[in-house]
Amino acid sequence: MSKYQNIKEECFRANMQLPELGLVIYTFGNVSMVDRKHNVFAIKPSGVPYETLTPQDIVIVDFENKIIEGDLRPSSDTKTHAHLYKSWSNIGGICHTHSTYAVAWAQAQLNIPIFGTTHADHLTTDIPCVPPMKDADIQGDYEKMTGKQITDYYTTIGMSPTEIEMVLIANHGPFTWGASVEKAVYNSKVLEELAKMAYLTLQINPKSEKLKSTLIQKHYERKHGKNAYYGQ
Amino acid sequence: MSKYQNIKEECFRANMQLPELGLVIYTFGNVSMVDRKHNVFAIKPSGVPYETLTPQDIVIVDFENKIIEGDLRPSSDTKTHAHLYKSWSNIGGICHTHSTYAVAWAQAQLNIPIFGTTHADHLTTDIPCVPPMKDADIQGDYEKMTGKQITDYYTTIGMSPTEIEMVLIANHGPFTWGASVEKAVYNSKVLEELAKMAYLTLQINPKSEKLKSTLIQKHYERKHGKNAYYGQ
Amino acid sequence: MSKYQNIKEECFRANMQLPELGLVIYTFGNVSMVDRKHNVFAIKPSGVPYETLTPQDIVIVDFENKIIEGDLRPSSDTKTHAHLYKSWSNIGGICHTHSTYAVAWAQAQLNIPIFGTTHADHLTTDIPCVPPMKDADIQGDYEKMTGKQITDYYTTIGMSPTEIEMVLIANHGPFTWGASVEKAVYNSKVLEELAKMAYLTLQINPKSEKLKSTLIQKHYERKHGKNAYYGQ
Amino acid sequence: MSKYQNIKEECFRANMQLPELGLVIYTFGNVSMVDRKHNVFAIKPSGVPYETLTPQDIVIVDFENKIIEGDLRPSSDTKTHAHLYKSWSNIGGICHTHSTYAVAWAQAQLNIPIFGTTHADHLTTDIPCVPPMKDADIQGDYEKMTGKQITDYYTTIGMSPTEIEMVLIANHGPFTWGASVEKAVYNSKVLEELAKMAYLTLQINPKSEKLKSTLIQKHYERKHGKNAYYGQ
Repeated sequence: MSKYQNIKEECFRANMQLPELGLVIYTFGNVSMVDRKHNVFAIKPSGVPYETLTPQDIVIVDFENKIIEGDLRPSSDTKTHAHLYKSWSNIGGICHTHSTYAVAWAQAQLNIPIFGTTHADHLTTDIPCVPPMKDADIQGDYEKMTGKQITDYYTTIGMSPTEIEMVLIANHGPFTWGASVEKAVYNSKVLEELAKMAYLTLQINPKSEKLKSTLIQKHYERKHGKNAYYGQ
Repeated sequence: MSKYQNIKEECFRANMQLPELGLVIYTFGNVSMVDRKHNVFAIKPSGVPYETLTPQDIVIVDFENKIIEGDLRPSSDTKTHAHLYKSWSNIGGICHTHSTYAVAWAQAQLNIPIFGTTHADHLTTDIPCVPPMKDADIQGDYEKMTGKQITDYYTTIGMSPTEIEMVLIANHGPFTWGASVEKAVYNSKVLEELAKMAYLTLQINPKSEKLKSTLIQKHYERKHGKNAYYGQ
Repeated sequence: MSKYQNIKEECFRANMQLPELGLVIYTFGNVSMVDRKHNVFAIKPSGVPYETLTPQDIVIVDFENKIIEGDLRPSSDTKTHAHLYKSWSNIGGICHTHSTYAVAWAQAQLNIPIFGTTHADHLTTDIPCVPPMKDADIQGDYEKMTGKQITDYYTTIGMSPTEIEMVLIANHGPFTWGASVEKAVYNSKVLEELAKMAYLTLQINPKSEKLKSTLIQKHYERKHGKNAYYGQ
Repeated sequence: MSKYQNIKEECFRANMQLPELGLVIYTFGNVSMVDRKHNVFAIKPSGVPYETLTPQDIVIVDFENKIIEGDLRPSSDTKTHAHLYKSWSNIGGICHTHSTYAVAWAQAQLNIPIFGTTHADHLTTDIPCVPPMKDADIQGDYEKMTGKQITDYYTTIGMSPTEIEMVLIANHGPFTWGASVEKAVYNSKVLEELAKMAYLTLQINPKSEKLKSTLIQKHYERKHGKNAYYGQ
C-alpha cells in the first residue's frame, strides 16, 4: 500500500465536500493537501467528475510539479497549488472553486468589504481581489504565475497567509487555504457566504459603512486572539 | 439522571432545527431554553458543529453566567442570553443566527420596514435594528452589553419583548425569542423570510409604501388579539 | 365513511404539495377543492402545520361558510374561498400562498409584466395586482371582502377567471385557481417562477419591453387555443 | 425490440437530468438526441411530466418532422430541433429549457457578457441573444422559424455551432447543443450558471469590464485548443 494512502483519502474526502456544500457544479473546483514530511501534495485529477472520483484517482505531486504517484493528470491548476505550498510553509491545504457570489465579486474586480462580525470572525480586512495578470504572464507559465500573483500581492499589502486565508483572482475566482485541508474547504464556504452577505448589504444600502475597528478587533480576538474564548 | 435532562434534550432539538431550516452554516448560531423554576438555562456549547452535537453536550448556566452542569464551555454569546432572561421574565427561549438576509439588513444598519400582511401576522412595527455599540462597551463586557443594548433599546422605543420578538444588532445579526424555545426558532425563520421579502420589495419598487395601519391591526389582531380566530 | 372522503384526501394531497414545491414555510398557505354536486368545499384547517396534517383534519364547508363536516376550525381565509366558488361556477380549486417573489410584487403594489413566452404559455396579460382594500372593508367582513375585491376587479378589467387564473392582493400575496385543485397548485408554482423571472429581467434591464402581441397570441394559442398542439 | 431502443433510453436519461439539475419545473423543457446513421432523432413527448416519463414515451422523428416511432405527440418544439440537426451536421444533441436566469437575460433582450474565466472555459464570445422574430414568421411556421432564426444568426455573426454551443432566443429562453446529448444538457447547466454570475457581476459593479482577450484565449485554449491540457 502506498505511503500516501492517508493523504489521498483525506484529500478525496475534502474534494467530495465541494458539491455537498454547493460550491461547485461539474468539475469547477479542486482541493489539495500537503505532506510536509515528504514535500509532496495530493490533488484532484483534472476534469474528473465528483460522482466517479475515488481516492485512488488522487494524484501525488511534488513542489516542482512532478507527478510522484498516480495514473491521471493532476488538476490544471496544480502549479498554482505547488507555488503556494513552496512559498508558504505554514499552510496545509488549498481549495479552489468557482462558487457563484465569490466569482461575481472577482468578475467585478472589487475587494469584498468587511461589513459585519461574520466577516470579522474570520479576518480583519476586506477580502482582497488580486488585479488581472499582465499579458506576458498569461501567455507564459500561466498557472504558476497565478500563484506568484497571489504571493506577490500579499508581500505588497504586507499581510501573511495566516492573517487572510482567502483571496479572489480578478475575473477568475477564489482560492482559500488553511492549516488543514478541512480548514481550506471551510474557508471556501465561509467566503461564499460573506460574498453573498456583502452583495445584499450593498443592494439594500449602497452607502453601507464598514465595520468599525473596535468591533473588528473584538470579534477576531475572541476567536483567534491570545485570550480567545470561542470554541472548546 | 440530571434534573435538567428534559431541557437539555429540548434545547438540543431546537438547536438542530437551525441547519435543517437553512438558518446556519457550521457553528454560526445558538439556541437556549430557560427553566424558570431553577433560574437556569440550557444553551449550545461554543464552536461545536451541529453534526456531532448531542443532548449531553448542552450546558446548563445560571443568570450570573455560572456553569451549573456540563463539561463544555457554553456559547460565547451566553452572557447576552443571560441578560435577556434576567431582564425579561416572560420569555422562554432565545435564538441567535447569522442568517443571510437578516444579516444583510443588520450590516446595512436599517430597520426592516413592514410592507405586508406576512409581517403584520407577526408584529405591528418595523423590525428594529439596534445601532452599533459604543467603543467602551465593545472593549468591556461585550456580550453582556449586547444584551443590555437590546433591553435599553426596547425601553427607549417603549416596546415590550412580547410585542416585538425579533431584533437586529447592527453589523452583527438577529436575535429572536418567544414564550417557548420552539417559538424562538420559529421567529428566526420568519425573520429571515420577512428580510428577504422586504429586500425584494425595495428592489422591485424603491418607493414601496408601508402597510397601512388598518391592515396592520387587522392581521395582527386576527392572530394575536382578544378575538383572534386564526389557529385551533 | 364520509361521502366527502375523496375530496378530503385529494385536498390533503394538494395542500401537502405546497411545502414540497417550496411555496410555503410553516402554515403560510392553504388549498381548497370544491364539490359542485353538494355545493361544498374541502379546505385546510387553520394554523395546522403540514408535518402533522392528515386527510381527516380537512374541513368541509358550504358556500355560506358553515362547517358541514370536521372537528377543526377551517382556514382563516375560508370566506375568501367561499366567495370565489360562489361567484365563479367554473373553478374547481383555489390555492393561497405567501411565496417569496409573488409577495414581493404584491408588496410593491405592481402588476407582474408579461415579458416572455413562459408567461404567455399561461396567460395573455400582466398578472394583476388588486389595489389595497378600503378601511371600512378591512374593519368589516375582511376575508369575504378580499374575495369580493378579486371578483369586482375582474369585472372592472373585463376579464374572466379562466383567462387569468392568478392574482396578487396588494400588500398580501397571491391567490390562484383552476379547473382542478391540481391546476390551482400548479398555477401558484408557475406564478412564483414568473414573478422571479420578471424581477430578474427588470434588474438586468430596467427598460425591458413587454412581449409583443403576436408572440403572446402564438404561445397562448398553441397551448390553450382551438387548434392547440401542445400536450397529448 | 426497436432499433431505436438505445437512443430512446439515452434521450430519456438526458431529459431526466433537467429536473435533477434544477433547470426545469413541470414540463418546461425538452432534450433530443440524433441518430446520424438513420437521419432521425429521439425527443421528449409534449407536455408529459418528468415524474411519469418512461423511455418508451420517447418519440422518434425524422428531419422532416415525420414521426417514425412512438405513440405520443413529440415536443411542440420538435421543428426547431429538426431544423438544427438538418442544418448542422456536427451536433449530436439539443437541449431547451426555461431556466430562470437564462430566461431573464432573454427577456431583457441582451447578450450575456463574457466577464470571467468560467465563461471563457466554454466559449470565447458573449452568449448571443437572437432578436425577436418578425410577425409573419411567428404567425407562420413558428417552431421551424425559431430554428432558422438561430442558424441565420450564426451565419450573420460568422460563427459555427461548435464555437458557440449556447444561445438565447429573445423573450423566450435558451437552446444549447453539443457533440453528444450529455454535452447539450451540460451546456444548459453551465449557461444558467454563467447567466447568474453575469447578473450578479453587473449588480455589484455596473461598469464591470469584459475579460481581456489574452485571458479568453488562454482559458479556451487550455481546455479546447490543439495543446489542451485540461482533463484526461
